[in-house]
Amino acid sequence: MKSILMVGQSNMAGRGFLTAVPPIVNENLSMFRNGRWQLMAEPVNFDREVAGVGPAPAFAQAWSQAHPHEQLGLIPCAEGGSAIAEWGPDGPLLRHAIQEAQFAQETSDIIAILWHQGENDSHDHLYRTYPQQLTATLTHLRTALKLPHVPIILGELPDFLGQQGFGLSAVEAPQINAAIHQVAAALPQAYVATATGLTSNPDGIHLDAPSQRRFGYRYYQAFQTQADVTVPAAQEATQVAQLTQSTPTPAERQYLASKRFAQGQGTFADFIAAYQAAQEDPA
Amino acid sequence: MKSILMVGQSNMAGRGFLTAVPPIVNENLSMFRNGRWQLMAEPVNFDREVAGVGPAPAFAQAWSQAHPHEQLGLIPCAEGGSAIAEWGPDGPLLRHAIQEAQFAQETSDIIAILWHQGENDSHDHLYRTYPQQLTATLTHLRTALKLPHVPIILGELPDFLGQQGFGLSAVEAPQINAAIHQVAAALPQAYVATATGLTSNPDGIHLDAPSQRRFGYRYYQAFQTQADVTVPAAQEATQVAQLTQSTPTPAERQYLASKRFAQGQGTFADFIAAYQAAQEDPA
Repeated sequence: MKSILMVGQSNMAGRGFLTAVPPIVNENLSMFRNGRWQLMAEPVNFDREVAGVGPAPAFAQAWSQAHPHEQLGLIPCAEGGSAIAEWGPDGPLLRHAIQEAQFAQETSDIIAILWHQGENDSHDHLYRTYPQQLTATLTHLRTALKLPHVPIILGELPDFLGQQGFGLSAVEAPQINAAIHQVAAALPQAYVATATGLTSNPDGIHLDAPSQRRFGYRYYQAFQTQADVTVPAAQEATQVAQLTQSTPTPAERQYLASKRFAQGQGTFADFIAAYQAAQEDPA
Repeated sequence: MKSILMVGQSNMAGRGFLTAVPPIVNENLSMFRNGRWQLMAEPVNFDREVAGVGPAPAFAQAWSQAHPHEQLGLIPCAEGGSAIAEWGPDGPLLRHAIQEAQFAQETSDIIAILWHQGENDSHDHLYRTYPQQLTATLTHLRTALKLPHVPIILGELPDFLGQQGFGLSAVEAPQINAAIHQVAAALPQAYVATATGLTSNPDGIHLDAPSQRRFGYRYYQAFQTQADVTVPAAQEATQVAQLTQSTPTPAERQYLASKRFAQGQGTFADFIAAYQAAQEDPA
């Protein structure tokens, strides 16, 4: 099977509210848990109890729709609140991400690295050293994983930073975005996904769930076209809506029935009926 | 700092409903995330989207109340639905747990291993080979972590198995319990915590949240007394209630204020006011 590695800070982990978008349930998508693969369910990257919707599930769903008979696994290693200085080759975040990714490589081929980071560096002229640091991090990651040419998709920081709430301190996001573009232009097989027009949670720093679906789709576009995505697709809203409009398969309906019962919804008889109906009615 | 390792299947990961018990918020407790330590918040062991309350947080809180100036970290490696045959030395679950624990050992001293497993082996006479398998798993774990004498606390399987819902198939839970006692009696520094009287979620297999608080307290009693806990303490209800009755510290109130704002509750001005009030009023 194929896999993708998720690295960066909170907007890669995901903080979009789970109830604000339709779930993505796809039996061909999985996530790395305790050294094995489990059916993907959000939040995928549970770095904090406030973890929610990030860009990777929409990326994965778009990939799956384009590769309907293949399996894709997500390797979650993003860490909320982390600065680029904490992602150095000797730091625990990158060392741990490499350890997880190498374990996942025993059973999968990593086809892309999804990166989003920089809010914690958008102040005090940190952008001046950001390109060297980011380049060192990504180069070390590729070397350690023995994937010198694996595509890396880097998301821009969103427009709304520096204006309100937890985002107030991120006043140099434009300079960090310039640095991200500079790094991607210099690195082979590195592409940028625009964050233009995306909106935030009330906290002013985290992308809301609908925006994370759009952002993940843009990450996929950059991956698929092997080029920067500098403007959103004209049909973006329609294409993103199609990510969650497929009819669940029997296995997916069984998963959802099991989840509802485990959460205390309905009786065992209800569960058995739903489970059997899922098997018997593949339509 | 000190740490504990959580291994086993879903009732160690935790499936108790988060809303059914008061939260444990303690600035001296943390959990392992991405190679670093973060303030503990439930669910600690996020193996599945239905993860919830397990026994480890109550264990940790009881330990913390007895060691008020020390830090304890939780290393979550339990995996829902796993059978003992999947916890062999060469399998991904144990290999991954060892990798995580070794990483955590760089910054902590593991003082206990908490184990709960066996529901998936409570059928078809699997109890016959269970003692050898469990002994091999635990011995390999101690050897790999270079902790030959670290206490291991094993919880019994609950009484309610074999009766309803997802628990229906676990008809040989009494035999697995006998095997667990046999293993603990033969291994040095291994102790059993009774599951007597604990109750389940509606699914008939997972311990409910109030029971997980009691179970975690029993795990702690076994750890603290270095002996099996075969009957619940006479004052168990009172002692368990005291786990969540302490007044939050300023740092804990700040964490809770940040969490509420990140979840979309209240304005930025509300958050700033709550955050400052937490600092200014340490009572």
